[in-house]
Amino acid sequence: MENDLIIGRNPVTEALKSGRTVEKLLVAKGSEKTLSKLIAIAKDAGVPVYYNDRARMDKIAGGGAHQGVAAYVSSYEYSEVEDLIARAEAKGEVPFLVILDGIEDPHNLGAILRSADGAGVHGVIIPKRRAVGVTGVVAKASAGAIEYVPVARVSNIPRAIDDLKQKGFWIAAVDMSETAYFKSDLKGRIALVIGNEGEGISRLAKEKCDFTVSIPMQGKVQSLNASNAAAIVMYEVLRQRQSDEERT
Amino acid sequence: MENDLIIGRNPVTEALKSGRTVEKLLVAKGSEKTLSKLIAIAKDAGVPVYYNDRARMDKIAGGGAHQGVAAYVSSYEYSEVEDLIARAEAKGEVPFLVILDGIEDPHNLGAILRSADGAGVHGVIIPKRRAVGVTGVVAKASAGAIEYVPVARVSNIPRAIDDLKQKGFWIAAVDMSETAYFKSDLKGRIALVIGNEGEGISRLAKEKCDFTVSIPMQGKVQSLNASNAAAIVMYEVLRQRQSDEERT
Repeated sequence: MENDLIIGRNPVTEALKSGRTVEKLLVAKGSEKTLSKLIAIAKDAGVPVYYNDRARMDKIAGGGAHQGVAAYVSSYEYSEVEDLIARAEAKGEVPFLVILDGIEDPHNLGAILRSADGAGVHGVIIPKRRAVGVTGVVAKASAGAIEYVPVARVSNIPRAIDDLKQKGFWIAAVDMSETAYFKSDLKGRIALVIGNEGEGISRLAKEKCDFTVSIPMQGKVQSLNASNAAAIVMYEVLRQRQSDEERT
Repeated sequence: MENDLIIGRNPVTEALKSGRTVEKLLVAKGSEKTLSKLIAIAKDAGVPVYYNDRARMDKIAGGGAHQGVAAYVSSYEYSEVEDLIARAEAKGEVPFLVILDGIEDPHNLGAILRSADGAGVHGVIIPKRRAVGVTGVVAKASAGAIEYVPVARVSNIPRAIDDLKQKGFWIAAVDMSETAYFKSDLKGRIALVIGNEGEGISRLAKEKCDFTVSIPMQGKVQSLNASNAAAIVMYEVLRQRQSDEERT
């Protein structure tokens, strides 16, 4: 994954609006006020903003007319949801997808992609907004898994869930419930939904899910690290599928 | 967990040797050479070393005679291995321990403690050397679990394994093998051994284990993030124990 530098107000604004992954926004000190709208858009999209001296900005821009702003944009190529399903079918496997409803920490996203590769997940769906994209930090934390597990970005997670239901998927929310994940049948065409680190799954997405499975908590902490939770349930899907293979 | 500042060569050397958790070592620029032995001990113990201007060191030391060196030491109170077993027995539960053979990343240790609390682990054993201790970063990543899951530090992991075997524990290495973790019986008195992020379990510790369980890897990456791997197998122990309860 390569990082490209974009400079100037219009190009950076376009990059932020286009859905390309903006890794970080660089702002010249003193330009905060005139760029306040652009900075707000970036923060809203979860893009980290760094403030540099004008001399440093000039150097980064290599003499280009940066107008006080620059952005690093990653050239990771996202897949379409259809590609993820096609990947399962090409392998002759029952499709197994994971929907991440707003993971913010790049280390978590990387670790989830790594475990997804291990568990035989065919692809991961993330939202375009309010979530980390596939950045360099994610690539590193994934230990190479971003090269193998395709990631699709969608504008609207609840709509993506509806589309998958139309295609015969069972949608399982990993959240608080009465049912331990290992007591649910997870063997069919399935998409697991994992929520944001702090807030969990958004209400609209949760309402679209077919059922909810819960990770039993024996101690005093209320929830697990998002990547740990994802890994546990992804591997339960694999366990159930492999147990099933043996029985047939 | 509080951090205490220790200043001066002898106190810092003693802290490093005592087995207390040294969070970080601060060295005055210009003193690197005369402190080279102390710095080597710190690095060997996995303690991060920071270099500061002498003026900043004077300020940190608050006027004390720092002799070019200071250290932040955490006052986390480690348990003894016997305490971990006693905790299980006090609860009337079959003891379930986790041995971390050299976890270096504090986020991993924190996430493992968090998942350990969730999975009903009675305590975690870590080595005194070449591993991260219970630092402030670990505390934060554990989401409070360090208050609930006792951690024991031992000088020698293979010896600790021998002691547990004497006490009737089965020792399961989580490593590469032919046997998927979900095909092994993990229901008795058990201690899971999780290896270092890069190197896995050390040879001497591995040789002491009763058996090895493996996390099947369906894709192309070779291994999982250490905290994800630990979470998957810890929860399999819980799953098997809860399934067993139902059958009886």
